[in-house]
Amino acid sequence: MELGMIGLGRMGGNMAERLRRGGHTVVGFDRDPKVSDVGSLEELVERLAPPRAVWVMVPAGQPTRDTVHSLGKLLQPGDVIVDGGNSHYVDDQKHGDELRAIGVGFVDCGVSGGVWGLQNGYALMVGGEQEHVDRLMPVFETLKPEGEYGFVHSGKVGAGHFVKMVHNGIEYAMMQAFGEGYELIEASDVVTNVPETFRSWQEGTVIRSWLLDLMNRALADDPQLDEIRGYANDSGEGRWTVQAAVDHAVPLPAITASLFARFSSRQDDSPAMKVVAALRNQFGGHAVEGAKGADSPGADVPPPPV
Amino acid sequence: MELGMIGLGRMGGNMAERLRRGGHTVVGFDRDPKVSDVGSLEELVERLAPPRAVWVMVPAGQPTRDTVHSLGKLLQPGDVIVDGGNSHYVDDQKHGDELRAIGVGFVDCGVSGGVWGLQNGYALMVGGEQEHVDRLMPVFETLKPEGEYGFVHSGKVGAGHFVKMVHNGIEYAMMQAFGEGYELIEASDVVTNVPETFRSWQEGTVIRSWLLDLMNRALADDPQLDEIRGYANDSGEGRWTVQAAVDHAVPLPAITASLFARFSSRQDDSPAMKVVAALRNQFGGHAVEGAKGADSPGADVPPPPV
Amino acid sequence: MELGMIGLGRMGGNMAERLRRGGHTVVGFDRDPKVSDVGSLEELVERLAPPRAVWVMVPAGQPTRDTVHSLGKLLQPGDVIVDGGNSHYVDDQKHGDELRAIGVGFVDCGVSGGVWGLQNGYALMVGGEQEHVDRLMPVFETLKPEGEYGFVHSGKVGAGHFVKMVHNGIEYAMMQAFGEGYELIEASDVVTNVPETFRSWQEGTVIRSWLLDLMNRALADDPQLDEIRGYANDSGEGRWTVQAAVDHAVPLPAITASLFARFSSRQDDSPAMKVVAALRNQFGGHAVEGAKGADSPGADVPPPPV
Amino acid sequence: MELGMIGLGRMGGNMAERLRRGGHTVVGFDRDPKVSDVGSLEELVERLAPPRAVWVMVPAGQPTRDTVHSLGKLLQPGDVIVDGGNSHYVDDQKHGDELRAIGVGFVDCGVSGGVWGLQNGYALMVGGEQEHVDRLMPVFETLKPEGEYGFVHSGKVGAGHFVKMVHNGIEYAMMQAFGEGYELIEASDVVTNVPETFRSWQEGTVIRSWLLDLMNRALADDPQLDEIRGYANDSGEGRWTVQAAVDHAVPLPAITASLFARFSSRQDDSPAMKVVAALRNQFGGHAVEGAKGADSPGADVPPPPV
Repeated sequence: MELGMIGLGRMGGNMAERLRRGGHTVVGFDRDPKVSDVGSLEELVERLAPPRAVWVMVPAGQPTRDTVHSLGKLLQPGDVIVDGGNSHYVDDQKHGDELRAIGVGFVDCGVSGGVWGLQNGYALMVGGEQEHVDRLMPVFETLKPEGEYGFVHSGKVGAGHFVKMVHNGIEYAMMQAFGEGYELIEASDVVTNVPETFRSWQEGTVIRSWLLDLMNRALADDPQLDEIRGYANDSGEGRWTVQAAVDHAVPLPAITASLFARFSSRQDDSPAMKVVAALRNQFGGHAVEGAKGADSPGADVPPPPV
Repeated sequence: MELGMIGLGRMGGNMAERLRRGGHTVVGFDRDPKVSDVGSLEELVERLAPPRAVWVMVPAGQPTRDTVHSLGKLLQPGDVIVDGGNSHYVDDQKHGDELRAIGVGFVDCGVSGGVWGLQNGYALMVGGEQEHVDRLMPVFETLKPEGEYGFVHSGKVGAGHFVKMVHNGIEYAMMQAFGEGYELIEASDVVTNVPETFRSWQEGTVIRSWLLDLMNRALADDPQLDEIRGYANDSGEGRWTVQAAVDHAVPLPAITASLFARFSSRQDDSPAMKVVAALRNQFGGHAVEGAKGADSPGADVPPPPV
Repeated sequence: MELGMIGLGRMGGNMAERLRRGGHTVVGFDRDPKVSDVGSLEELVERLAPPRAVWVMVPAGQPTRDTVHSLGKLLQPGDVIVDGGNSHYVDDQKHGDELRAIGVGFVDCGVSGGVWGLQNGYALMVGGEQEHVDRLMPVFETLKPEGEYGFVHSGKVGAGHFVKMVHNGIEYAMMQAFGEGYELIEASDVVTNVPETFRSWQEGTVIRSWLLDLMNRALADDPQLDEIRGYANDSGEGRWTVQAAVDHAVPLPAITASLFARFSSRQDDSPAMKVVAALRNQFGGHAVEGAKGADSPGADVPPPPV
Repeated sequence: MELGMIGLGRMGGNMAERLRRGGHTVVGFDRDPKVSDVGSLEELVERLAPPRAVWVMVPAGQPTRDTVHSLGKLLQPGDVIVDGGNSHYVDDQKHGDELRAIGVGFVDCGVSGGVWGLQNGYALMVGGEQEHVDRLMPVFETLKPEGEYGFVHSGKVGAGHFVKMVHNGIEYAMMQAFGEGYELIEASDVVTNVPETFRSWQEGTVIRSWLLDLMNRALADDPQLDEIRGYANDSGEGRWTVQAAVDHAVPLPAITASLFARFSSRQDDSPAMKVVAALRNQFGGHAVEGAKGADSPGADVPPPPV
């Protein structure tokens, strides 16, 4: 089928290429004229025959919001927009409502697959009305991996990015789980063969997984992780996951602990622990009326008499 | 080679059978005379030619401790004991020290593989001195899965059970990660196709794993998990993991959160939350001097004037 | 000075009364004509001489937003609004910006003190420009408790509700701390005198506090908390605290754990733990290729042979 | 009454002094002959008339265990030992059992009060049999603060140290609560008067407490805590609290988070976060088959086209 693709970077460009190889007609637009098929959004819309389908593949947040708003002014009733970026599901719901009011369909699509997606396909998580998803199915069929997995229509508008967000929250906790296990094993004085241990777990264990495979790739290159600082960014989707949990009154202790561990990893010094240290100092000799450091009597008593 | 096997239940019996199929000579002892090759530990020891190797496959804790102590009295310098149960690594260290004093070797071996191990092999994590591990390698080679994974000599005595323990701690957090993700998705009002979503994740995602496969098996049978109560036991190894972390001053927030979630799942009512509720009640009208429920002014103020 | 007070419920009514006792002139408006001095917001504004000061004391969220917007249309440059409810600081910032644009001042004020505030004064946490706070100081001086504590100008617009919000977050973790301590002591088989223990802690300990006093009041009435269910609501400010922390990349493990404990306390069954339980079931005998429940070998092995 | 006191350091020496001022006869023993009344434990025991009472006030762990064992050999049926140090309740139970077997009583006593205890009294938490506690009541009455609080007989042998341990666990979470609140307020861009805010909370709030008073003392000296590193030791009792919780299957999320925050504060780099960082690196361009960093597509897409 015919599709407009906005954003022809590593992701959008490869997806356009995979679609063309699959027999689709893709009109691409990018700020970079060297890769763009058209000179403007207006021209892109003109080049497509109604009812149009336009895939937005630009950074989440303001860039996506700006692009969707601009498209909304150019498209006609019966057209449909797909947001394939990493948008917040709350943005999707606003976009869906705004576009519905003018008769334009909206589908959100969480995409996983990266640089190997061109060859192997992209895992797709889709939210939107059945009619719009159906219209786009030829595109989804070409983008997804072969086989029975890797595509889902998860629910209403927002559902695609919601489940992609939760996927990433789960990912945070799984990564943290391997990190914590590694740290405890490293701290042990009986375990001497740490990389070999993780390597052996790749078969026959409960925790075998793609992340374990990745971990073993990392340990193969750098068996003690000497080249790596314990400093981890977060992408925003982990934060959204925790905030969605708070909004829905869902307890998320392991995922939240994983997010907080990343926050802590980026601190040179912890203001919270300054307070704890300051309070411990206050337990000392100049303490106020009636005061005693609850955990210091041991330090006060003399060496043993025996 | 020749091996004594103590405990011929589902695990020990199948391991003995896999060893025999692999050409080893196994003399088995079990309390149940119907499956036992010998009538007593004494007879088992007599039947083996020195230097002997005896594999103990009985429940962790007192049964294993009793068995190791009894064997210690019967064996001779040069013999070696393998503890293949789920023992605490601290027990291993005691057993190793006691047996070393009388010239008997000790190897601890964490085993994973269950009912499919007979056919597919068992993942083995081993701790002990190189000389003793080397002596037992023919046995390990037969028990382990084919291929390059599934066996590791992790370190000194205790290392095998230590890493098996941590494996289970990692497993706790991974299971919790999927549980939390599921709960948040269930709570969403945009996601309607929950089982389909998890199913689609089996390819092309970061979180693909054996546990995700298992989860999809569960959802295939019972798509809303209606037949299942949110009640989870813990095996002891999760507890040991947290206690080892505390002993080693290693922060383990995600794994510990996962253990605590299991504890909470087994409570009809939470005494801690009774206190929180009681404190909130105290914020009410009869509260003491200067008191005000910090979060109740909203409830005090009248309906909006507009 | 002269002040308009919108919302004459338990909080607003008592604050108006304390202000009158302190010599101020208060014109009150409430939806309930029996307690209202005027019939409408318009009449309230007419009755006040410019530059006016109007205190809004209605429920947080839409009611407060509606009231502030309505007032914004009635007031003149030089007037000032105080929001004394439990508003989200993000709302304050919007209100401050909107009103600034039309020359009306905005001050947010977190209030603590409840039913005893009339007599003992209210703790006040204020955000806003110095000039507006200065104008309102006569009112704050009358409302606050005697002595050197209980009033602070914490910063810009939003700062008052921000610090009140964090105050409540701290409160959550302190309540949780007492709850957890109580539960652990209750679980012990050596401690038999639980209420007496908490009672004794009111002097000479590190944890003496107003919350401990409240807890002892609760235990005095109901020594085993038999009358209380472990079910705790949350007020919204705990949620905002966690969301603000996520926004600011601040790790907040203890406060968040306290919020999540409240969420869990309200669940009949935990969907997350259903997943954990379902996964554990999958470890059983019908498990898939290569699978073995990591924590089940203990259950598989026979009774001890000795 | 007559009491032997072993360990005459800051704690034991002051307690002996307070007892003497209260009319008791104290025979003190210390390794330091300059402060010791007797030259040996043997001489101390000889100097006391049966039935004797001996208070052990030496460091917890091996020193206390050694002292109790030595005393056990010297005392007679009807004598009683008090352990006033910071012992683990598990040690108490062993000591109680051993001494009961030879007719010697054992009482464990958690002590709070520090350098101000001499003047103001010590908070005492006691475990043991009623008969032994009764015998020692004259001593407890003199040591405790005046008034109705500060002494409790919490239960059986071990109960005194158990509740003192939990007291410290609660203390950890309360300190963490203030630390987290401080950090979030510091991170805000609307709050400019941080020390003033905490200072104002000392009256009229829910969180007023002795720890808040201490925090304000610290902030008065060092308003931005510039002189303090966010590095916090732990005393052992926090660890025991968590381990006791795990033993009793009691979820302790806030207290455990507080302990883990201390562990983390002492790490230069986090091995767990090295793993997380390494895994994130693996998501990059050279990733394996089918792989894509779930949280990186945003980085892959081009700048916005508008």
